[in-house]
Amino acid sequence: MGEFELLAKLRERLPQLGSRVRLGSGDDAAVTVPGGATATSVDALVDGVHFRRDQGRLEGIGHKALATALSDLAAMGAEAGEAYVVLGVPADLSEDECLQVVDGMVALAAKTGTTLAGGDVTRAPVLTLAVTVVGHADSADDLVSRGGARPGDALVLTGELGGAAAGLLLLERPELAAAVSEETAERLRRRQLEPWPRLRSGRALAAVGATAMIDLSDGLGSDAGHIAARSGAALRIEAAALPLAKGVAEVAAAAGRNPLELATAGGEDYELLVALPADRLGQASTAIGEAEEAALTPVGEVAAGSGVEIRLPGGESLETGGFDQLARRPAEP
Amino acid sequence: MGEFELLAKLRERLPQLGSRVRLGSGDDAAVTVPGGATATSVDALVDGVHFRRDQGRLEGIGHKALATALSDLAAMGAEAGEAYVVLGVPADLSEDECLQVVDGMVALAAKTGTTLAGGDVTRAPVLTLAVTVVGHADSADDLVSRGGARPGDALVLTGELGGAAAGLLLLERPELAAAVSEETAERLRRRQLEPWPRLRSGRALAAVGATAMIDLSDGLGSDAGHIAARSGAALRIEAAALPLAKGVAEVAAAAGRNPLELATAGGEDYELLVALPADRLGQASTAIGEAEEAALTPVGEVAAGSGVEIRLPGGESLETGGFDQLARRPAEP
Repeated sequence: MGEFELLAKLRERLPQLGSRVRLGSGDDAAVTVPGGATATSVDALVDGVHFRRDQGRLEGIGHKALATALSDLAAMGAEAGEAYVVLGVPADLSEDECLQVVDGMVALAAKTGTTLAGGDVTRAPVLTLAVTVVGHADSADDLVSRGGARPGDALVLTGELGGAAAGLLLLERPELAAAVSEETAERLRRRQLEPWPRLRSGRALAAVGATAMIDLSDGLGSDAGHIAARSGAALRIEAAALPLAKGVAEVAAAAGRNPLELATAGGEDYELLVALPADRLGQASTAIGEAEEAALTPVGEVAAGSGVEIRLPGGESLETGGFDQLARRPAEP
Repeated sequence: MGEFELLAKLRERLPQLGSRVRLGSGDDAAVTVPGGATATSVDALVDGVHFRRDQGRLEGIGHKALATALSDLAAMGAEAGEAYVVLGVPADLSEDECLQVVDGMVALAAKTGTTLAGGDVTRAPVLTLAVTVVGHADSADDLVSRGGARPGDALVLTGELGGAAAGLLLLERPELAAAVSEETAERLRRRQLEPWPRLRSGRALAAVGATAMIDLSDGLGSDAGHIAARSGAALRIEAAALPLAKGVAEVAAAAGRNPLELATAGGEDYELLVALPADRLGQASTAIGEAEEAALTPVGEVAAGSGVEIRLPGGESLETGGFDQLARRPAEP
């Protein structure tokens, strides 16, 4: 099957064009009429670096590539719009397998209202996915950067932490699964393999006045540091307040690891860490409830100063970076 | 050097933000206020598939990755806007070499008014670049697809053909360079290694009423076929009218190849093939002259029917696909 035939097969799988798209895949470029402001982000997944083809479903790889890109739009409070996909296909990936990868993207695109509007297919030494996503907002002022956190703001977190790191441990050391029920083990593995972009939560939090947001891809400590640096403020996080995903404590214990390490340095949970004026906490919880996506947990506050402090229950503090990165993202590019 | 330090160094090299960009690299996403319509395209270059690291300057690889993406915007008649870059860095590419690749992109971005607005750096088995470009127009109607060619339209071509294919022959068989002057050989190699996106020409041709445009990446025969298929029309091209780049005939002769093969099947010339109403030819030439980029040559016409016919001087016709593809783009993904 030639490149053009594969592209034609891929195009057949694409859902209807979104309302802003005038011309989709198959021309020199896609044409959209955005209106307002756009948020654009790009994310790449490479076999052996960010995932392993033999761990999990091929659909999950497509899902994760799109999900991690959309997660950045969630962290801006943008509405998902269009995605553009580069698929680098190794010689040992069959046509059917290639289409399975795409099916995972198509399914998530449908669930999130994203139009797969274009792409490029090429040969590559290993399965490689690069996804560019474009999100929308009525105006640039409606989008939330990392840089607006102010002393006195509350820090809140969507969902639960540590699940993706625990899932990775289960994938790499299957014997650890004995520590939890099969249902819990499967849920943890799915957190690692098929993360969910918090698009609804991000928009709801932006609408109630979030001052800074970031999605947790590298780990709470590292990502909180980005908000602190860009906002010129200090972030204080209470370790005892951090919501651990079910089974994280048991998997960590079985692996001889500190569950707090999985929660703060594991990364890939793709939850949102959000600063917002403390008097908006109630509104934020209501808005998140209406978004029906994940609970919201207050985890700390923004203070004058710089850096990130994670306060342990005993009164000690955890230095950011005190735990090794567990995430597969390379420290050395 | 860690990923974040490299990203910081890369960011230092980025030029000023374009007028539409509210927030550039360093947040979850870039924020732009497009206005009107956007054209978005994505292109990937992989070492060993689309280029070889040992052929030419590293800056040239960065240049080519951005240029081939921008060429798609040229073929829409769009104004260059923003670029988002995924850089897959192999272990044997040093930090300095990585920055050289980026410098090639930065230089072309500056020359074309493109803002490098975001990106992602990851480890990869071989040097891999995926570039998403966003171009702009006042409205979607100002952009030119592949699908509007009508019987009676004239076919015109920017610049010259065969140079990139001849350059590739020179890179792979250096002894062929004896057939031309060193200056000509160098110009041909540059056509292959550092193509130029015809952005000004594309906008000028769109403004005078082009009905269909495509950039020649796969080769004239193949790319003309895309216009024919999307427009539901036949394209008739006169081989004798095709403008060959200087030195193509000599290199082809030295290699025992037909120069017409290089011109029609070689690909990677990144010239524009354009259909437009025949009575606009004069306006088009004037507009192209004002764009000061490349000459415009009438090469044929659009007729009722389907497919592409390349008429040879003797009265015979060349079937599209009659020559093997010379381009490095893989036939089998």
